[in-house]
Amino acid sequence: MKRSERLVDMTKYLMERPHTLIALPFFAKRYGAAKSSISEDLAILKHTLASNQDGILETVAGAAGGVRYIPFLGKKHAEVYLSDLSTRIEDPSRILAGGFVYLSDILGNTQDLRKIGELVATHYAYEEIDAVMTVETKGIALAQAVARFLDVPFVTARKRSKVTEGATVSVNYISSSLSRVSKMELPTRALKKEAKVLIVDDFMKGGGTLTGMEELVKEFDGTIAGVCVLCEADFDKEKLIVAEPGNFLTETDFDRF
Amino acid sequence: MKRSERLVDMTKYLMERPHTLIALPFFAKRYGAAKSSISEDLAILKHTLASNQDGILETVAGAAGGVRYIPFLGKKHAEVYLSDLSTRIEDPSRILAGGFVYLSDILGNTQDLRKIGELVATHYAYEEIDAVMTVETKGIALAQAVARFLDVPFVTARKRSKVTEGATVSVNYISSSLSRVSKMELPTRALKKEAKVLIVDDFMKGGGTLTGMEELVKEFDGTIAGVCVLCEADFDKEKLIVAEPGNFLTETDFDRF
Repeated sequence: MKRSERLVDMTKYLMERPHTLIALPFFAKRYGAAKSSISEDLAILKHTLASNQDGILETVAGAAGGVRYIPFLGKKHAEVYLSDLSTRIEDPSRILAGGFVYLSDILGNTQDLRKIGELVATHYAYEEIDAVMTVETKGIALAQAVARFLDVPFVTARKRSKVTEGATVSVNYISSSLSRVSKMELPTRALKKEAKVLIVDDFMKGGGTLTGMEELVKEFDGTIAGVCVLCEADFDKEKLIVAEPGNFLTETDFDRF
Repeated sequence: MKRSERLVDMTKYLMERPHTLIALPFFAKRYGAAKSSISEDLAILKHTLASNQDGILETVAGAAGGVRYIPFLGKKHAEVYLSDLSTRIEDPSRILAGGFVYLSDILGNTQDLRKIGELVATHYAYEEIDAVMTVETKGIALAQAVARFLDVPFVTARKRSKVTEGATVSVNYISSSLSRVSKMELPTRALKKEAKVLIVDDFMKGGGTLTGMEELVKEFDGTIAGVCVLCEADFDKEKLIVAEPGNFLTETDFDRF
């Protein structure tokens, strides 16, 4: 196979498997090429991603080494997209009765989810994360988008017991938007013990739901690797913050290149 | 920019935007290259995807022309993956009380979702589809995975009215697993009138939920472009069918190349 064809296939292969270490001999065998040629291919790939600021190709040296594609969006991409997104979210026609904001179109748009997922994954690219967690229903799309770019599983806490999930662990939490005590649960087999969990949700008002998810992680002896919500509303005025608590905008510089 | 770098960037760019027509002048400008060079690049890309049976690069001629990347998995990929998936699904430890099957690990695994999404999108690659629809909760991950590869929005019908969605249209349906009449609803602004809708769900027992979704589409004057479930259970024996009613395995041959 020619270099040009190898580059197309290699780009596709790596993009489909983010954060996964691929050994050089794998590519050498796949293309019937010398390891030195593969190394040259990977150098081209690495350089192209870096100069576009839209990904990192990490080389791991040694016998157990190889390459790993890290989805990583540079500051310029983040700024352009987030400015566009916040303009769309600030549209007054989204405001529903009760001060809620209609977001289902954005959370059902696969191009938005790709961008948001990749931006959040950029922020947590070098954190150790075993799973992404959310609570039904609207956070699921976001959790899936983030999990895809981190290549970890995502789990969904549910507000009602379901016979199709088997044994569950449940916690009570105070839902600030409904001002009452609610319950959320997770199947016992959904999360392994002592997992490092990134919590993702679409909207935060008082933070009760996020606290509930944190409690749930503790019940599995896990630790919180981060908490990330797309939008946050103040009680008196509308305020939108993307990816809290960390602000990835300042961190996605490509100084490492 | 050199050809090798253009190929890497072009592959990534097209993969991120399936089913989207990209005009040749766009690439010519992006890379500062002649249109004839871009055409040669695209021919390499097309050939590589075709020989691996993992995608189609469609060329559209004329003034409004360009190229379009169609996610399309060949028969050999489908067979390998589906045989692996069905082995995993048939594992007796998945059977829960009541004859339900635990699927949340597969529906929370981003690599499985990528494969299933791409296989379903392959089957519907040349159908006209405006939106993918599912009902909460477990079908959401699948609907999102399919929508991503078809590059259409996905909408989620909900079983309970939510204040965060605004005005809704609701239908009643008979849930065969619970043997009672239930209600599902969709925000009025979620689906445009006369949309062609692909219905996706994780599990089908009696089909009541699917019928409910079909009713909901009709309320929006829409038409059903297809109905697709990951697993189907018979009432007396467990039977697993992937992607009903069509069987995409026989159709994903690459005769067109």
